[in-house]
Amino acid sequence: MTTGVRRRMGVEERRQQLIGVALELFSRRSPDEVSIDEIASAAGISRPLVYHYFPGKLSLYEAALKRASEDLAARFVEPPEGPLAGRLLRVMARFFDFVDEHGPGFAALMRGGPAVGSSATNALVDSVRQAAYDQILAHLKVTEPPARLELAVRSWISLAESTALIWLDGRRIPRTELEAQLVHDLAALIAVSAAYDDEMGALLRRILKDEPADGPFADLVGRLITLAS
Amino acid sequence: MTTGVRRRMGVEERRQQLIGVALELFSRRSPDEVSIDEIASAAGISRPLVYHYFPGKLSLYEAALKRASEDLAARFVEPPEGPLAGRLLRVMARFFDFVDEHGPGFAALMRGGPAVGSSATNALVDSVRQAAYDQILAHLKVTEPPARLELAVRSWISLAESTALIWLDGRRIPRTELEAQLVHDLAALIAVSAAYDDEMGALLRRILKDEPADGPFADLVGRLITLAS
Repeated sequence: MTTGVRRRMGVEERRQQLIGVALELFSRRSPDEVSIDEIASAAGISRPLVYHYFPGKLSLYEAALKRASEDLAARFVEPPEGPLAGRLLRVMARFFDFVDEHGPGFAALMRGGPAVGSSATNALVDSVRQAAYDQILAHLKVTEPPARLELAVRSWISLAESTALIWLDGRRIPRTELEAQLVHDLAALIAVSAAYDDEMGALLRRILKDEPADGPFADLVGRLITLAS
Repeated sequence: MTTGVRRRMGVEERRQQLIGVALELFSRRSPDEVSIDEIASAAGISRPLVYHYFPGKLSLYEAALKRASEDLAARFVEPPEGPLAGRLLRVMARFFDFVDEHGPGFAALMRGGPAVGSSATNALVDSVRQAAYDQILAHLKVTEPPARLELAVRSWISLAESTALIWLDGRRIPRTELEAQLVHDLAALIAVSAAYDDEMGALLRRILKDEPADGPFADLVGRLITLAS
């Protein structure tokens, strides 16, 4: 019985090791370019043994993506304390850390393609988007979002994804600038909606009310007023 | 020789007819759910004859997507006359026309999936994004975009895509409101970047200089000032 338990533990440990090795390789190069032979070699085991744990490259890719998805979703979690812009800025820094660590794999995943377009991978990507959405609503203290807020937040999430993808392509703009810009972008998208909708206007006023006079939102408004004059 | 020419014309006409029938079906339902049998039936020909013109569903899907891509890219073309916001608003109306006409197919394509994630379909989607990008730069009269402008425009294009996808999912916000909002969003994203970058600031001033005092951009600025006070 003891041996049985040890053997089952060993299987799970080996699976976890393979997932870690695969995630490392899938992060550094496009998943299309990573072979099972390479994963086996990096893990120090034989190719048939890899197939013993995972039926094929796609299942190993999906397991690696699942781990990466959970890792990213965990980085979205931020204590609901202090000014909102500051919280969001810290989350953006962790998001760019993740993008930096998994660059080529992130780009290949988000741009789609033969190895990454399965319904399982799409579901994982959607689960991360949903985690981001849920976190933002929680920080905004909104439980039943009006359609215009849902649109602003969800479309901003895709804006954040594309901003990260464009950053990866040459890194021509410092990432700290983009982290701050994305925080401002969310405020700007909500403001544009608020300019034409009273419910969104009330929401925006409530958000800004608690922001410090020397915080990122006040700084943006000040600069925009200077720019407009 | 005359017969030969007629026969080649016939083949091309039949291909074009099949593409039209397939595009109609792929637009109304997720491409995964459309069968070759159904396409054959809608075209009034046999299933083997469909395969005579297209080796499989994917090649027919790609041909239909190519036609739709060219159609959409053509809708981006707008004469470089009159205020910029008005031009962009007209393009947005045609974009939403397209999304409306091809709803389920557009959603399936943009959300990815087994039938739609080939490298050929990704290349077609990218070509439409590039066409949109080129048109916007031409209207802004910019030939060598700074990195921050490229980021603002390209990330706005993904914002427009996700806004259209969210609209399709329940149509809870009137599309005319979203068409205007997207025009404002582009200005807002450029303004956020301009608040922290002199080159973008100069660009924004040049854009706004030619906009009418009663146009969409002036209206937004006026409303935002009211909201901020």
